[in-house]
Amino acid sequence: MPKAHKARRTAGRPASHQQVQRDQLLDLATQAFAHTGIKASSLRMIAESAGVTPALLNYYFGNKQQLVDAMVEERFLPLVQEIAEELRSTDDDPQRLVRTFVRSMSEMVRHNPWIPPLWVREILCEGGLLRAQLTTRIAPMVPLLLAQRFASAQARGALNPTLDPRLLVVSLIGVTMLPYAAESIWRGIFANPEVGHEALVNHTLALMERGMEV
Amino acid sequence: MPKAHKARRTAGRPASHQQVQRDQLLDLATQAFAHTGIKASSLRMIAESAGVTPALLNYYFGNKQQLVDAMVEERFLPLVQEIAEELRSTDDDPQRLVRTFVRSMSEMVRHNPWIPPLWVREILCEGGLLRAQLTTRIAPMVPLLLAQRFASAQARGALNPTLDPRLLVVSLIGVTMLPYAAESIWRGIFANPEVGHEALVNHTLALMERGMEV
Repeated sequence: MPKAHKARRTAGRPASHQQVQRDQLLDLATQAFAHTGIKASSLRMIAESAGVTPALLNYYFGNKQQLVDAMVEERFLPLVQEIAEELRSTDDDPQRLVRTFVRSMSEMVRHNPWIPPLWVREILCEGGLLRAQLTTRIAPMVPLLLAQRFASAQARGALNPTLDPRLLVVSLIGVTMLPYAAESIWRGIFANPEVGHEALVNHTLALMERGMEV
Repeated sequence: MPKAHKARRTAGRPASHQQVQRDQLLDLATQAFAHTGIKASSLRMIAESAGVTPALLNYYFGNKQQLVDAMVEERFLPLVQEIAEELRSTDDDPQRLVRTFVRSMSEMVRHNPWIPPLWVREILCEGGLLRAQLTTRIAPMVPLLLAQRFASAQARGALNPTLDPRLLVVSLIGVTMLPYAAESIWRGIFANPEVGHEALVNHTLALMERGMEV
């Protein structure tokens, strides 16, 4: 089973008051970036929502760009690294790889519900401020790794030969992330159906595993 | 084969100069709303990019909200209605329904490349200004129609019984739209692969048709 995928906090020694406060402020900033957008979130707004002065945010993080960098390095990328580690430690079977990806991503999103709105706003949106980060840093960890594994599985006859191994990565991200990114939309359209976390994961796995069969 | 899915212009009588100019301005506004966002696109900016005065935009469309309404009514919804008509005229076979959907959507997007960025920014994004339109007006035309057809196909044993018919609609939209919405991202990651329109459609159909098999 995948780990809980909580965004990493301080490890080892007990957290100081300063460390706790910095973590809380970074959480609030992450929420603001995800739900209001990076560009529209000012240090002043984030400080106000936290009930602190802008000077205190400044003391912990420096300027706005450095606060964004802290969110990326300490909240976003560690989660991607966890997924990447789980994929690397999964054997070559493409079905198992997809199972690991879908289950890990779903757990990650469940414990960090700010991920889907941040993904839509700052990666998928044209002009999204994390697009560059994604292409240079996430690509080798997850999409390229998956595409290579899918291509070699296909070469040895272990993957539906009519699929494109690179596009399969795009399809996989689409079927895994869209249900979370558009959750309030489809729940509205389908009169708030009783579809829980496990049912959603099982549906996605049933579609992908069958679709990948040779 | 699906129709070309060009956004509708004036039909029947020859277009007057005014009608042509209004159409051109509405096209430019649609581009601005898709690529810059509805909120960030002012009448002044759109007029400037068209080389006309804000007063002329005002003369044709009224205020900003009325310009947005014109884009929705005359550019966006007619395309959705065409897809809906094609789905309604497709028989009950769920595979054929998915083929019609994927091919029609792909053609529509190919001829109207402003659709994916508008979809991401104004529907998928939290606070997107077309979310309400989607839920109330598009839902009965496409998602609800598909979900009902999938559910009845499943009830008579013509669809993979481990899928959720409602989530299948979400999966289908994800695998169809994400490759277009994230096209520049995956083309960057995979070193600009030679994947054309047909190859993309065929990959998506191969995955979905296999995945839906009983």
